[in-house]
Amino acid sequence: MSTSTYGGFFEASDLTDAEVDEIEARFVPVADDLRRLGTLAIGSEVGDDEVSRAREHLAAAADLLGRKCRETPSGVQHNATGRSWQWGNAVIGRRNPVAPPMTVERHADGSTSAALFLGNGYEGPPTMVHGGVSALLLDHLMGVTASSMKKLTMTGTLQLRYTRPLPLGDVWLAGRIVSDTGRKVTVTAEIGGADGAAVEAEGLFIVPSWSVAPDGDR
Amino acid sequence: MSTSTYGGFFEASDLTDAEVDEIEARFVPVADDLRRLGTLAIGSEVGDDEVSRAREHLAAAADLLGRKCRETPSGVQHNATGRSWQWGNAVIGRRNPVAPPMTVERHADGSTSAALFLGNGYEGPPTMVHGGVSALLLDHLMGVTASSMKKLTMTGTLQLRYTRPLPLGDVWLAGRIVSDTGRKVTVTAEIGGADGAAVEAEGLFIVPSWSVAPDGDR
Repeated sequence: MSTSTYGGFFEASDLTDAEVDEIEARFVPVADDLRRLGTLAIGSEVGDDEVSRAREHLAAAADLLGRKCRETPSGVQHNATGRSWQWGNAVIGRRNPVAPPMTVERHADGSTSAALFLGNGYEGPPTMVHGGVSALLLDHLMGVTASSMKKLTMTGTLQLRYTRPLPLGDVWLAGRIVSDTGRKVTVTAEIGGADGAAVEAEGLFIVPSWSVAPDGDR
Repeated sequence: MSTSTYGGFFEASDLTDAEVDEIEARFVPVADDLRRLGTLAIGSEVGDDEVSRAREHLAAAADLLGRKCRETPSGVQHNATGRSWQWGNAVIGRRNPVAPPMTVERHADGSTSAALFLGNGYEGPPTMVHGGVSALLLDHLMGVTASSMKKLTMTGTLQLRYTRPLPLGDVWLAGRIVSDTGRKVTVTAEIGGADGAAVEAEGLFIVPSWSVAPDGDR
Protein backbone atom coordinates (compact mmCIF):
# COMPACT_ATOMS: atom_id res chain seq x y z
CA MET A 1 0.00 0.00 0.00
CA SER A 2 2.86 2.37 0.66
CA THR A 3 6.25 3.00 -0.78
CA SER A 4 9.16 4.55 1.02
CA THR A 5 12.09 6.81 0.29
CA TYR A 6 15.45 7.62 1.89
CA GLY A 7 16.25 3.95 2.52
CA GLY A 8 12.94 3.45 4.30
CA PHE A 9 13.29 6.45 6.60
CA PHE A 10 10.09 8.06 5.37
CA GLU A 11 6.93 6.00 5.02
CA ALA A 12 4.73 7.20 2.16
CA SER A 13 1.17 7.81 3.33
CA ASP A 14 -2.03 7.90 1.27
CA LEU A 15 -3.55 10.48 3.65
CA THR A 16 -4.46 13.88 2.24
CA ASP A 17 -3.54 17.04 4.17
CA ALA A 18 -7.18 17.40 5.22
CA GLU A 19 -7.20 13.85 6.58
CA VAL A 20 -3.99 14.48 8.52
CA ASP A 21 -5.56 17.63 9.99
CA GLU A 22 -8.68 15.67 10.93
CA ILE A 23 -6.70 12.91 12.65
CA GLU A 24 -4.57 15.43 14.54
CA ALA A 25 -7.70 17.30 15.67
CA ARG A 26 -9.04 14.00 16.99
CA PHE A 27 -5.98 12.65 18.80
CA VAL A 28 -3.76 15.60 19.83
CA PRO A 29 -6.31 16.56 22.54
CA VAL A 30 -6.09 12.98 23.86
CA ALA A 31 -2.32 13.38 24.24
CA ASP A 32 -2.91 16.73 25.97
CA ASP A 33 -5.38 15.07 28.35
CA LEU A 34 -2.74 12.44 29.13
CA ARG A 35 -0.06 15.10 29.73
CA ARG A 36 -2.32 16.66 32.39
CA LEU A 37 -3.09 13.22 33.85
CA GLY A 38 0.64 12.50 34.04
CA THR A 39 1.13 15.51 36.30
CA LEU A 40 -1.75 14.29 38.48
CA ALA A 41 -0.27 10.77 38.67
CA ILE A 42 2.88 12.34 40.15
CA GLY A 43 1.27 14.72 42.61
CA SER A 44 -2.17 13.37 43.49
CA GLU A 45 -2.87 12.83 47.18
CA VAL A 46 -6.36 11.31 46.94
CA GLY A 47 -7.26 8.00 48.59
CA ASP A 48 -7.81 4.46 47.40
CA ASP A 49 -11.47 5.01 46.52
CA GLU A 50 -10.81 7.91 44.12
CA VAL A 51 -7.83 6.08 42.58
CA SER A 52 -9.84 2.93 42.09
CA ARG A 53 -12.61 4.82 40.32
CA ALA A 54 -10.09 6.83 38.27
CA ARG A 55 -8.44 3.60 37.12
CA GLU A 56 -11.80 2.26 35.97
CA HIS A 57 -12.17 5.35 33.78
CA LEU A 58 -8.63 4.92 32.44
CA ALA A 59 -9.38 1.28 31.59
CA ALA A 60 -12.57 2.32 29.79
CA ALA A 61 -10.66 4.95 27.80
CA ALA A 62 -7.99 2.40 26.87
CA ASP A 63 -10.67 -0.04 25.74
CA LEU A 64 -12.22 2.59 23.45
CA LEU A 65 -8.92 3.82 21.98
CA GLY A 66 -7.61 0.29 21.58
CA ARG A 67 -10.50 -1.02 19.48
CA LYS A 68 -8.45 -0.19 16.38
CA CYS A 69 -4.80 0.66 16.87
CA ARG A 70 -1.56 0.52 14.93
CA GLU A 71 0.80 -1.39 17.22
CA THR A 72 3.98 -0.62 15.28
CA PRO A 73 5.85 2.65 15.98
CA SER A 74 4.43 5.67 14.15
CA GLY A 75 7.62 6.36 12.19
CA VAL A 76 8.03 9.36 9.94
CA GLN A 77 5.17 9.61 7.47
CA HIS A 78 4.96 11.82 4.42
CA ASN A 79 2.30 12.32 1.80
CA ALA A 80 2.06 13.40 -1.82
CA THR A 81 2.01 17.13 -0.98
CA GLY A 82 5.33 16.81 0.85
CA ARG A 83 3.83 17.17 4.30
CA SER A 84 5.55 15.01 6.90
CA TRP A 85 4.59 14.06 10.47
CA GLN A 86 6.01 12.04 13.34
CA TRP A 87 3.15 11.51 15.74
CA GLY A 88 5.11 9.30 18.13
CA ASN A 89 8.44 11.15 18.19
CA ALA A 90 9.76 11.43 21.76
CA VAL A 91 10.36 15.20 21.40
CA ILE A 92 7.99 16.60 18.78
CA GLY A 93 5.31 13.88 18.62
CA ARG A 94 2.02 15.74 18.99
CA ARG A 95 0.12 12.52 19.71
CA ASN A 96 2.80 11.34 22.19
CA PRO A 97 2.30 12.39 25.84
CA VAL A 98 5.97 11.60 26.56
CA ALA A 99 6.86 14.55 24.27
CA PRO A 100 6.40 18.09 25.71
CA PRO A 101 5.89 18.48 22.58
CA MET A 102 8.52 20.82 21.14
CA THR A 103 8.03 22.73 17.85
CA VAL A 104 11.22 23.77 16.06
CA GLU A 105 11.20 27.04 14.09
CA ARG A 106 13.54 27.35 11.13
CA HIS A 107 14.79 30.84 10.29
CA ALA A 108 15.90 32.30 6.96
CA ASP A 109 19.58 32.24 7.95
CA GLY A 110 19.46 28.49 8.69
CA SER A 111 19.31 28.93 12.44
CA THR A 112 16.60 27.29 14.55
CA SER A 113 14.78 28.04 17.76
CA ALA A 114 12.11 26.65 20.04
CA ALA A 115 10.18 27.76 23.11
CA LEU A 116 8.24 25.40 25.33
CA PHE A 117 6.98 24.76 28.84
CA LEU A 118 8.51 21.90 30.84
CA GLY A 119 6.24 20.79 33.68
CA ASN A 120 6.66 18.50 36.66
CA GLY A 121 7.21 15.40 34.53
CA TYR A 122 10.59 16.65 33.26
CA GLU A 123 12.21 17.02 36.68
CA GLY A 124 15.73 15.93 37.62
CA PRO A 125 17.23 17.85 40.55
CA PRO A 126 14.38 19.22 42.71
CA THR A 127 12.39 21.89 40.79
CA MET A 128 14.97 21.74 37.95
CA VAL A 129 14.84 20.33 34.42
CA HIS A 130 16.55 16.92 34.25
CA GLY A 131 19.98 17.38 32.66
CA GLY A 132 19.18 14.51 30.33
CA VAL A 133 15.97 16.22 29.20
CA SER A 134 18.08 19.21 28.14
CA ALA A 135 20.27 16.76 26.20
CA LEU A 136 17.18 15.17 24.62
CA LEU A 137 15.74 18.49 23.43
CA LEU A 138 19.12 19.79 22.24
CA ASP A 139 19.82 16.60 20.28
CA HIS A 140 16.50 16.93 18.50
CA LEU A 141 16.78 20.63 17.69
CA MET A 142 20.36 20.16 16.47
CA GLY A 143 19.35 17.25 14.26
CA VAL A 144 16.66 19.43 12.69
CA THR A 145 19.21 22.23 12.26
CA ALA A 146 21.63 19.91 10.44
CA SER A 147 18.96 18.30 8.27
CA SER A 148 16.74 19.59 5.49
CA MET A 149 14.40 18.23 2.85
CA LYS A 150 17.53 17.58 0.81
CA LYS A 151 19.70 16.21 3.59
CA LEU A 152 18.89 13.63 6.23
CA THR A 153 21.39 13.45 9.10
CA MET A 154 21.86 11.29 12.19
CA THR A 155 23.68 12.25 15.40
CA GLY A 156 27.39 11.32 15.21
CA THR A 157 28.79 12.95 18.33
CA LEU A 158 27.33 15.34 20.88
CA GLN A 159 29.19 17.38 23.52
CA LEU A 160 27.24 19.06 26.29
CA ARG A 161 28.49 21.58 28.86
CA TYR A 162 26.22 22.27 31.82
CA THR A 163 26.79 25.80 33.11
CA ARG A 164 23.89 26.30 35.52
CA PRO A 165 20.71 24.57 36.73
CA LEU A 166 17.62 25.14 34.58
CA PRO A 167 14.35 25.63 36.49
CA LEU A 168 11.21 23.83 35.33
CA GLY A 169 8.85 26.13 33.44
CA ASP A 170 9.37 28.14 30.28
CA VAL A 171 12.57 27.28 28.39
CA TRP A 172 14.06 28.31 25.05
CA LEU A 173 16.48 26.67 22.63
CA ALA A 174 18.55 28.11 19.78
CA GLY A 175 20.74 26.31 17.23
CA ARG A 176 22.89 27.13 14.21
CA ILE A 177 25.17 25.42 11.70
CA VAL A 178 28.86 26.25 12.15
CA SER A 179 30.19 24.10 9.31
CA ASP A 180 28.83 21.87 6.56
CA THR A 181 31.17 19.68 4.53
CA GLY A 182 28.43 17.81 2.68
CA ARG A 183 28.31 14.54 4.60
CA LYS A 184 29.21 16.12 7.97
CA VAL A 185 27.41 19.05 9.55
CA THR A 186 28.58 20.70 12.79
CA VAL A 187 25.90 22.42 14.84
CA THR A 188 25.99 24.42 18.08
CA ALA A 189 23.00 25.06 20.30
CA GLU A 190 21.93 26.21 23.75
CA ILE A 191 19.01 25.67 26.08
CA GLY A 192 18.14 28.13 28.80
CA GLY A 193 15.49 29.90 30.83
CA ALA A 194 14.84 33.36 32.13
CA ASP A 195 18.35 33.57 33.64
CA GLY A 196 20.15 32.81 30.36
CA ALA A 197 21.77 29.72 28.85
CA ALA A 198 22.05 26.64 31.08
CA VAL A 199 23.52 24.03 28.71
CA GLU A 200 25.76 24.59 25.67
CA ALA A 201 26.06 21.89 23.03
CA GLU A 202 28.11 21.09 19.94
CA GLY A 203 27.28 18.17 17.71
CA LEU A 204 28.48 16.46 14.58
CA PHE A 205 25.64 15.22 12.40
CA ILE A 206 26.34 12.73 9.66
CA VAL A 207 24.49 11.88 6.45
CA PRO A 208 24.17 8.09 6.68
CA SER A 209 25.48 6.20 3.65
CA TRP A 210 22.12 4.47 3.17
CA SER A 211 20.41 7.83 2.63
CA VAL A 212 22.72 8.90 -0.19
CA ALA A 213 21.06 8.42 -3.55
CA PRO A 214 23.04 6.38 -6.13
CA ASP A 215 23.54 9.51 -8.24
CA GLY A 216 25.31 11.08 -5.27
CA ASP A 217 23.25 14.25 -5.14
CA ARG A 218 21.99 13.68 -1.61
CA MET B 1 6.71 20.71 58.73
CA SER B 2 9.81 19.45 56.96
CA THR B 3 13.48 20.21 57.06
CA SER B 4 15.96 19.72 54.27
CA THR B 5 19.58 18.78 53.83
CA TYR B 6 22.25 19.11 51.12
CA GLY B 7 21.40 22.76 50.50
CA GLY B 8 17.75 21.91 49.98
CA PHE B 9 18.34 19.07 47.53
CA PHE B 10 16.56 16.50 49.68
CA GLU B 11 13.20 17.27 51.23
CA ALA B 12 12.69 15.54 54.57
CA SER B 13 9.42 13.61 54.66
CA ASP B 14 7.42 12.50 57.68
CA LEU B 15 6.19 9.40 55.80
CA THR B 16 7.12 6.00 57.21
CA ASP B 17 8.40 3.27 54.87
CA ALA B 18 5.01 1.56 55.12
CA GLU B 19 3.24 4.76 54.08
CA VAL B 20 5.59 5.20 51.12
CA ASP B 21 4.87 1.60 50.09
CA GLU B 22 1.13 2.24 50.39
CA ILE B 23 1.27 5.41 48.27
CA GLU B 24 3.38 3.69 45.61
CA ALA B 25 0.97 0.75 45.50
CA ARG B 26 -1.84 3.24 44.92
CA PHE B 27 -0.30 5.49 42.26
CA VAL B 28 2.35 3.47 40.35
CA PRO B 29 -0.44 1.48 38.61
CA VAL B 30 -1.98 4.80 37.53
CA ALA B 31 1.30 5.77 35.87
CA ASP B 32 1.42 2.33 34.23
CA ASP B 33 -2.16 2.81 32.94
CA LEU B 34 -1.09 6.17 31.49
CA ARG B 35 1.98 4.63 29.82
CA ARG B 36 -0.32 2.18 28.01
CA LEU B 37 -2.74 4.99 27.12
CA GLY B 38 0.18 7.01 25.72
CA THR B 39 0.93 4.25 23.24
CA LEU B 40 -2.76 4.19 22.25
CA ALA B 41 -2.81 7.99 21.80
CA ILE B 42 -0.01 7.58 19.24
CA GLY B 43 -1.40 4.62 17.31
CA SER B 44 -5.18 4.57 17.75
CA GLU B 45 -7.25 4.58 14.58
CA VAL B 46 -10.74 4.74 16.09
CA GLY B 47 -13.28 7.38 15.08
CA ASP B 48 -14.63 10.55 16.62
CA ASP B 49 -17.30 8.76 18.65
CA GLU B 50 -14.86 6.47 20.48
CA VAL B 51 -12.41 9.34 21.03
CA SER B 52 -15.12 11.58 22.39
CA ARG B 53 -16.23 8.93 24.87
CA ALA B 54 -12.61 8.11 25.79
CA ARG B 55 -11.95 11.78 26.54
CA GLU B 56 -14.97 11.88 28.85
CA HIS B 57 -13.43 9.02 30.82
CA LEU B 58 -10.05 10.80 30.89
CA ALA B 59 -11.72 13.96 32.19
CA ALA B 60 -13.50 11.96 34.89
CA ALA B 61 -10.23 10.34 35.92
CA ALA B 62 -8.51 13.74 36.05
CA ASP B 63 -11.32 15.12 38.20
CA LEU B 64 -10.94 12.27 40.68
CA LEU B 65 -7.13 12.41 40.86
CA GLY B 66 -7.14 16.21 41.02
CA ARG B 67 -9.39 16.50 44.07
CA LYS B 68 -6.28 16.68 46.22
CA CYS B 69 -2.97 17.18 44.44
CA ARG B 70 0.46 18.62 45.20
CA GLU B 71 1.03 21.10 42.35
CA THR B 72 4.74 21.68 43.03
CA PRO B 73 7.29 19.25 41.52
CA SER B 74 7.77 16.07 43.53
CA GLY B 75 11.47 16.71 44.23
CA VAL B 76 13.68 14.22 45.99
CA GLN B 77 12.14 13.11 49.29
CA HIS B 78 13.80 11.17 52.07
CA ASN B 79 12.58 9.93 55.40
CA ALA B 80 13.99 9.08 58.82
CA THR B 81 15.00 5.53 57.80
CA GLY B 82 17.15 6.90 54.97
CA ARG B 83 14.79 5.81 52.21
CA SER B 84 14.61 8.27 49.33
CA TRP B 85 12.21 8.57 46.39
CA GLN B 86 11.75 10.78 43.32
CA TRP B 87 8.25 10.07 42.10
CA GLY B 88 8.35 12.69 39.33
CA ASN B 89 11.87 12.16 38.01
CA ALA B 90 11.91 12.14 34.18
CA VAL B 91 13.91 8.88 34.07
CA ILE B 92 13.26 6.90 37.24
CA GLY B 93 9.99 8.45 38.51
CA ARG B 94 7.70 5.50 39.18
CA ARG B 95 4.64 7.76 39.33
CA ASN B 96 5.68 9.66 36.17
CA PRO B 97 4.39 8.26 32.85
CA VAL B 98 7.03 10.29 30.98
CA ALA B 99 9.66 8.02 32.60
CA PRO B 100 10.05 4.47 31.18
CA PRO B 101 10.83 4.13 34.26
CA MET B 102 14.45 3.00 34.57
CA THR B 103 15.84 1.28 37.69
CA VAL B 104 19.59 1.59 38.19
CA GLU B 105 21.44 -1.32 39.85
CA ARG B 106 24.61 -0.56 41.80
CA HIS B 107 27.22 -3.30 41.93
CA ALA B 108 29.85 -4.03 44.58
CA ASP B 109 32.68 -2.71 42.38
CA GLY B 110 30.98 0.68 41.97
CA SER B 111 29.71 -0.02 38.48
CA THR B 112 26.05 0.37 37.56
CA SER B 113 23.63 -1.20 35.12
CA ALA B 114 20.03 -1.03 33.99
CA ALA B 115 17.72 -2.97 31.69
CA LEU B 116 14.43 -1.63 30.43
CA PHE B 117 11.89 -1.74 27.62
CA LEU B 118 11.51 1.36 25.40
CA GLY B 119 8.16 1.38 23.61
CA ASN B 120 6.68 3.46 20.81
CA GLY B 121 6.76 6.69 22.82
CA TYR B 122 10.59 6.83 22.77
CA GLU B 123 10.96 6.84 18.99
CA GLY B 124 13.28 9.08 16.96
CA PRO B 125 14.27 7.64 13.58
CA PRO B 126 11.57 5.18 12.45
CA THR B 127 11.47 2.10 14.76
CA MET B 128 14.62 3.37 16.53
CA VAL B 129 15.19 4.87 19.98
CA HIS B 130 15.50 8.67 19.78
CA GLY B 131 19.19 9.60 20.08
CA GLY B 132 18.23 12.13 22.71
CA VAL B 133 16.47 9.45 24.76
CA SER B 134 19.74 7.50 24.82
CA ALA B 135 21.41 10.72 26.06
CA LEU B 136 18.70 11.17 28.71
CA LEU B 137 19.08 7.65 30.09
CA LEU B 138 22.88 7.74 29.97
CA ASP B 139 23.00 11.09 31.78
CA HIS B 140 20.85 9.70 34.56
CA LEU B 141 22.71 6.42 34.97
CA MET B 142 26.07 8.23 34.91
CA GLY B 143 24.89 10.72 37.54
CA VAL B 144 23.88 7.83 39.79
CA THR B 145 27.25 6.17 39.13
CA ALA B 146 29.12 9.33 40.16
CA SER B 147 26.97 10.01 43.22
CA SER B 148 26.46 8.18 46.50
CA MET B 149 24.85 8.74 49.88
CA LYS B 150 28.02 10.64 50.77
CA LYS B 151 28.47 12.51 47.51
CA LEU B 152 25.92 14.45 45.48
CA THR B 153 27.05 15.33 41.95
CA MET B 154 25.63 17.32 39.03
CA THR B 155 26.45 16.86 35.34
CA GLY B 156 29.38 19.08 34.31
CA THR B 157 30.12 17.87 30.79
CA LEU B 158 28.84 14.95 28.75
CA GLN B 159 30.30 13.54 25.49
CA LEU B 160 28.26 11.10 23.45
CA ARG B 161 29.37 9.03 20.45
CA TYR B 162 26.65 7.36 18.40
CA THR B 163 27.99 4.22 16.77
CA ARG B 164 24.83 2.54 15.46
CA PRO B 165 21.04 2.92 15.52
CA LEU B 166 19.30 1.40 18.57
CA PRO B 167 16.00 -0.38 17.85
CA LEU B 168 13.01 0.23 20.13
CA GLY B 169 12.45 -2.62 22.58
CA ASP B 170 14.72 -4.09 25.23
CA VAL B 171 17.81 -2.00 25.95
CA TRP B 172 20.61 -2.22 28.52
CA LEU B 173 22.96 0.36 30.05
CA ALA B 174 26.24 -0.04 31.92
CA GLY B 175 28.37 2.60 33.68
CA ARG B 176 31.56 2.83 35.74
CA ILE B 177 33.78 5.41 37.41
CA VAL B 178 37.12 5.93 35.67
CA SER B 179 38.47 8.62 38.02
CA ASP B 180 37.42 10.39 41.22
CA THR B 181 39.36 13.39 42.48
CA GLY B 182 36.93 14.25 45.27
CA ARG B 183 34.98 17.11 43.74
CA LYS B 184 35.19 15.77 40.16
CA VAL B 185 34.14 12.27 39.08
CA THR B 186 34.65 10.95 35.54
CA VAL B 187 32.24 8.25 34.41
CA THR B 188 31.93 6.21 31.22
CA ALA B 189 28.81 4.38 30.11
CA GLU B 190 27.12 2.69 27.18
CA ILE B 191 23.60 1.97 26.02
CA GLY B 192 22.81 -0.82 23.61
CA GLY B 193 20.46 -3.54 22.49
CA ALA B 194 20.70 -7.10 21.27
CA ASP B 195 23.30 -6.10 18.64
CA GLY B 196 25.71 -4.53 21.14
CA ALA B 197 26.52 -0.97 22.21
CA ALA B 198 24.88 1.84 20.23
CA VAL B 199 26.01 4.96 22.13
CA GLU B 200 29.20 5.47 24.17
CA ALA B 201 29.38 8.26 26.73
CA GLU B 202 31.93 9.94 28.97
CA GLY B 203 30.91 12.51 31.54
CA LEU B 204 32.43 14.73 34.18
CA PHE B 205 30.24 15.00 37.27
CA ILE B 206 30.88 17.76 39.77
CA VAL B 207 30.08 18.09 43.47
CA PRO B 208 28.34 21.49 43.62
CA SER B 209 29.84 23.92 46.15
CA TRP B 210 26.45 24.33 47.84
CA SER B 211 26.36 20.64 48.70
CA VAL B 212 29.71 20.65 50.50
CA ALA B 213 29.18 20.71 54.27
CA PRO B 214 31.03 23.46 56.22
CA ASP B 215 33.28 20.84 57.81
CA GLY B 216 34.37 19.86 54.34
CA ASP B 217 33.67 16.16 54.67
CA ARG B 218 31.20 16.09 51.82
